[in-house]
Amino acid sequence: MSGFGSTSLKAEIICVGTELLLGQIIDTHGPTLATMLAECGITCQRRTTVGDNADRIIAAITEALSRSEIVITVGGLGPTGDDITRDCIAVALGDKLVLEPAVERKLKAFFAQRGITYAESNSRQAMRPESAVLIDNPYGTAPGLRCEKKGKTVIALPGPPGEFNPMAHGSVKDYLQTRTPGTVIHSRVLRVIGIGESLVEQQLVHLMQDSNPTLAPYAHTGEVHLRLTAMASSVQEADRLIDPLEEKIRAVLGTAVYGVGGTTLEMAVMELVKERNLTVAVAESMTGGGLGERLTSNPGSSAVFAGGWIPYSVAMKVASLEIPVDVVLEHGPVSGEVARRMATQARVLSGASIGVSITGNAGPTTDLGSAPVGQTFIAVATEAEVQVSEFNWRGIRQDIRRRATQQALHLLRENLLKGA
Amino acid sequence: MSGFGSTSLKAEIICVGTELLLGQIIDTHGPTLATMLAECGITCQRRTTVGDNADRIIAAITEALSRSEIVITVGGLGPTGDDITRDCIAVALGDKLVLEPAVERKLKAFFAQRGITYAESNSRQAMRPESAVLIDNPYGTAPGLRCEKKGKTVIALPGPPGEFNPMAHGSVKDYLQTRTPGTVIHSRVLRVIGIGESLVEQQLVHLMQDSNPTLAPYAHTGEVHLRLTAMASSVQEADRLIDPLEEKIRAVLGTAVYGVGGTTLEMAVMELVKERNLTVAVAESMTGGGLGERLTSNPGSSAVFAGGWIPYSVAMKVASLEIPVDVVLEHGPVSGEVARRMATQARVLSGASIGVSITGNAGPTTDLGSAPVGQTFIAVATEAEVQVSEFNWRGIRQDIRRRATQQALHLLRENLLKGA
Repeated sequence: MSGFGSTSLKAEIICVGTELLLGQIIDTHGPTLATMLAECGITCQRRTTVGDNADRIIAAITEALSRSEIVITVGGLGPTGDDITRDCIAVALGDKLVLEPAVERKLKAFFAQRGITYAESNSRQAMRPESAVLIDNPYGTAPGLRCEKKGKTVIALPGPPGEFNPMAHGSVKDYLQTRTPGTVIHSRVLRVIGIGESLVEQQLVHLMQDSNPTLAPYAHTGEVHLRLTAMASSVQEADRLIDPLEEKIRAVLGTAVYGVGGTTLEMAVMELVKERNLTVAVAESMTGGGLGERLTSNPGSSAVFAGGWIPYSVAMKVASLEIPVDVVLEHGPVSGEVARRMATQARVLSGASIGVSITGNAGPTTDLGSAPVGQTFIAVATEAEVQVSEFNWRGIRQDIRRRATQQALHLLRENLLKGA
Repeated sequence: MSGFGSTSLKAEIICVGTELLLGQIIDTHGPTLATMLAECGITCQRRTTVGDNADRIIAAITEALSRSEIVITVGGLGPTGDDITRDCIAVALGDKLVLEPAVERKLKAFFAQRGITYAESNSRQAMRPESAVLIDNPYGTAPGLRCEKKGKTVIALPGPPGEFNPMAHGSVKDYLQTRTPGTVIHSRVLRVIGIGESLVEQQLVHLMQDSNPTLAPYAHTGEVHLRLTAMASSVQEADRLIDPLEEKIRAVLGTAVYGVGGTTLEMAVMELVKERNLTVAVAESMTGGGLGERLTSNPGSSAVFAGGWIPYSVAMKVASLEIPVDVVLEHGPVSGEVARRMATQARVLSGASIGVSITGNAGPTTDLGSAPVGQTFIAVATEAEVQVSEFNWRGIRQDIRRRATQQALHLLRENLLKGA
């Protein structure tokens, strides 16, 4: 985002919670809010994490207010004695706490409906600093708060993800957008497969000089994400700036761009299989079911995924996939020939249009018929042909297995694109 | 950790990096350091995240030094123009930066060895604030820093995980322990399966009142973790305090405690299978390979995992597992009877000692022979018997699939324990 001039509106995020501070929970709400602030054209200056300690929470809020126009707190709005964010905001703003009777009635009704005795401590959740308006919490008992005082804004959100996320992405984002009317920073992510980060950079370097929209590549396991970001007066306007950049990128990278935004590789592949009215079966040894797991992770997979085999042992390769034992012994279980047979048999025995196989050694030892750690064979079989590819990866077991399913999906996709 | 009295030594963590602040990277180093500080008996007061901006980094360090004896920074030690943490520490401490010739020689040798031209900008990594000693970085070019001045300590570590982790867990932890001689806070985690968090709490409430060691439960998907924490003069002494608490917990929960520390459920199950000289095969429909994936995720699985089937379609259930089509049609693919047949056939066809099956509807729609979303049948078949269990879970597809593999591992484990 460094390509854009700084706006005058500054914000800070304060995450409250001893578990968070002590590292027992990883903070994902902070990054969610930071991304949202950026999208609204507001500069996030600092993120602070403090424990459930009144003095330190008050100090953090007071300091943040001295530097920034908007302060967003997360956590500490519940009914227990540890939940003191509400009280600390009141102190930092010099506000009294007042009871919001409508919220108390709602709380009491909520408990009555469930047949639970109402403990008076629950009414703490119905208190608000005088300058606060309440932010509706559709999935929990504690409402959020938005305090406006002396040109500063404090927003308080609850910590449980099921409550935080809808509130943050809903009314909080709507509010933040009203603070910077006509200023939106909007991103689109293009997902790229089959080409490394440095080569992507090399091919796109001429597009990476522009300041609006900006283009930035990020490496992930087995794929690269390109973030295209524009500052504009609206999301629609930002999209209009991003569209031509996306076109230029696609002109260079072609089908290596497999998806946009949250589209995973398995989603893109399943979509292609569906479009072509085909079905897929798998036979995977080294990955133990990981390829099938990815191919079935999204709704609708039963229409295109026939099923598969996990022939982990040599005996299973012979018995369940009917590969002649001589072939396995002659070539070894980790071999191109066995990969070829596995993919073919998966296709034939399942009646699917395409069979995909993986056999390899994920390590850490080399007892699999002497196949070195990282050696992997992947085959894609159609009625017309079988393509076998060999890979030799380095890394830990988990990485090698992830690379294998990623590469198998990539090869399946290439096959589908070729047949288009 | 709230059970312990506060020590006088306070620390803060400052994470530096615009990508971190903007939410493009999730911070895991902060939690790592926070856990370590707690283990060394040092109170972590605050964690601050700032971007690559000199004024804000200097302000964050200066403020942290005004509150705490120890300040640890992460990130911004590399060779590029964005890497300014070193310079900011010097400013905050009122130090000059001086060149460390030994580091510069090492850097030049590193580049020469790789045949890369040495850019003068790399020498920035050989600079240090006057009051700093260097912390060796065995896996990267930028050394860490430890500055001692006016009773305050600033430690600077690089951000790349491959460099950060060995340095943090090595010389930095050693140093922090020297700051609190005879004070160690040490934790042990017991992992519990087959019993919910509230019931665990209810059964252990009499053990949760003690202040040293303390006992705290944490809920995870399908399991509960119990953290036993002691403050003592050494790790050994802490272990001696924790041992009797662990014994008391095990006396209450019995075999529900499946593992300690980093032992996952699949590791514990595979260990039991190995101990009993058995083998396992799977037949999984709804989870698409996820159970096999978990059973093969750790080294040594080929000795105990025969393999499996992913009979996703009805046709595959009939063709590959040889389940009579009448049975599937009569009971439906999601039924106790089909689960029973799948587990039995997996065992018989693979020649394994135990067969485990999963069939269900993970949603989001109910087109699978009218099985409601969340309905799942899991069977465990041995030569002697077949046990079938039915579950009806609520939640999104991903959660239901995760619960199913978790529950299948739990039922397999119960079967193994029974047969002991």
